[in-house]
Amino acid sequence: MSRARVHNFAISLDGFGTGEGQSHEAHFGHAGERLHEWMFATRWWRPGGSGGVDDAFVQQYDPGIGAEIMGAGKFGHPGWHEDPEWKGAWGPNPPFHTPVFVLTHHTRPSIEMEGGTTFHFIDASPDEALKTAREAAGGKDVRIGGGPTMIRDFLAAGLVDYMHTVLVPILLGRGVRLWDGLEGLEENYEIEATSSPSGVAHVTFTRAGS
Amino acid sequence: MSRARVHNFAISLDGFGTGEGQSHEAHFGHAGERLHEWMFATRWWRPGGSGGVDDAFVQQYDPGIGAEIMGAGKFGHPGWHEDPEWKGAWGPNPPFHTPVFVLTHHTRPSIEMEGGTTFHFIDASPDEALKTAREAAGGKDVRIGGGPTMIRDFLAAGLVDYMHTVLVPILLGRGVRLWDGLEGLEENYEIEATSSPSGVAHVTFTRAGS
Repeated sequence: MSRARVHNFAISLDGFGTGEGQSHEAHFGHAGERLHEWMFATRWWRPGGSGGVDDAFVQQYDPGIGAEIMGAGKFGHPGWHEDPEWKGAWGPNPPFHTPVFVLTHHTRPSIEMEGGTTFHFIDASPDEALKTAREAAGGKDVRIGGGPTMIRDFLAAGLVDYMHTVLVPILLGRGVRLWDGLEGLEENYEIEATSSPSGVAHVTFTRAGS
Repeated sequence: MSRARVHNFAISLDGFGTGEGQSHEAHFGHAGERLHEWMFATRWWRPGGSGGVDDAFVQQYDPGIGAEIMGAGKFGHPGWHEDPEWKGAWGPNPPFHTPVFVLTHHTRPSIEMEGGTTFHFIDASPDEALKTAREAAGGKDVRIGGGPTMIRDFLAAGLVDYMHTVLVPILLGRGVRLWDGLEGLEENYEIEATSSPSGVAHVTFTRAGS
């Protein structure tokens, strides 16, 4: 079975997955890199990093993934679709190494990058996008890549089989919320919280039978 | 030093401390008792309950407390002030056993209950209320009793020294949020998350030097 999986999705204690004021220079707005410092400290991110529970969770990011779907806001700052040269913020060899489907109303020809990543641009519902990505994944799982708005849409549509969120002990106060409009989500998942010595808490959602 | 402390304050993953539709029959609105099931399972609540980390946290509710301040919404359902006989929902011997200051625009004479609890009704700012409660506490700590709106007001005014919140893995979707308008709160506290086998995560805020 090909599952739809969310990994390493960090949110502040007050529920924001992205800060306010996203731009080319500030991919997460006023949140800066504060939502991801726990990740930068792992050996998955850098040699010599920690090998504890934070690392155990991030190590699951790649294995078994055959394609990713991401929102337009993850592919670039607001207005990227007006720049015909924009190829994402990850350099010539992006860290996906699979087909990546970018959800956008401004479609453009696919872009083949180094290392196995190809960006495809589709204007599709969550359900349609997942069908397309599953075909491209060749039986493997599909990563639901974020940001918060598209993850919320996929959750609301009942399309997510596994979700790993990371509660970071900061209060952003403003930005884009993950949780809006998802009342009763727990009825479809086994939810487990795991605190880490780094200060974050990993909260995983596993759908029954997936 | 007399500290101001919050204990056992449960919130849903999406940040609600109380559900929508509070009434005489539904003290927490549509949340029902789902925010507090972790507490009912402890031996603090009932003989034969669990003695693990959940119990270790709730056992700190009473010791060292000399007074409580609570919001009008905790003392009673909306409209209680129109009922001259209303004495709270806790029966003749409420579980406070200290002076309790109820913040309300509808003040009334104090009510002495059994077991050491006396309800006083004051129309005061958080700062004024804390001063009054501290005097009554005779050098002991003051419990900031909730609900979410009054805790938020006391946090925003910088008056809370210690706060124990409990993240419950449910999504209420609607109700009263604890976290609104508290951007940057983490700068004044050491925050620690502790996951429990029961499924909740305890998140404590300890102010430096308190």
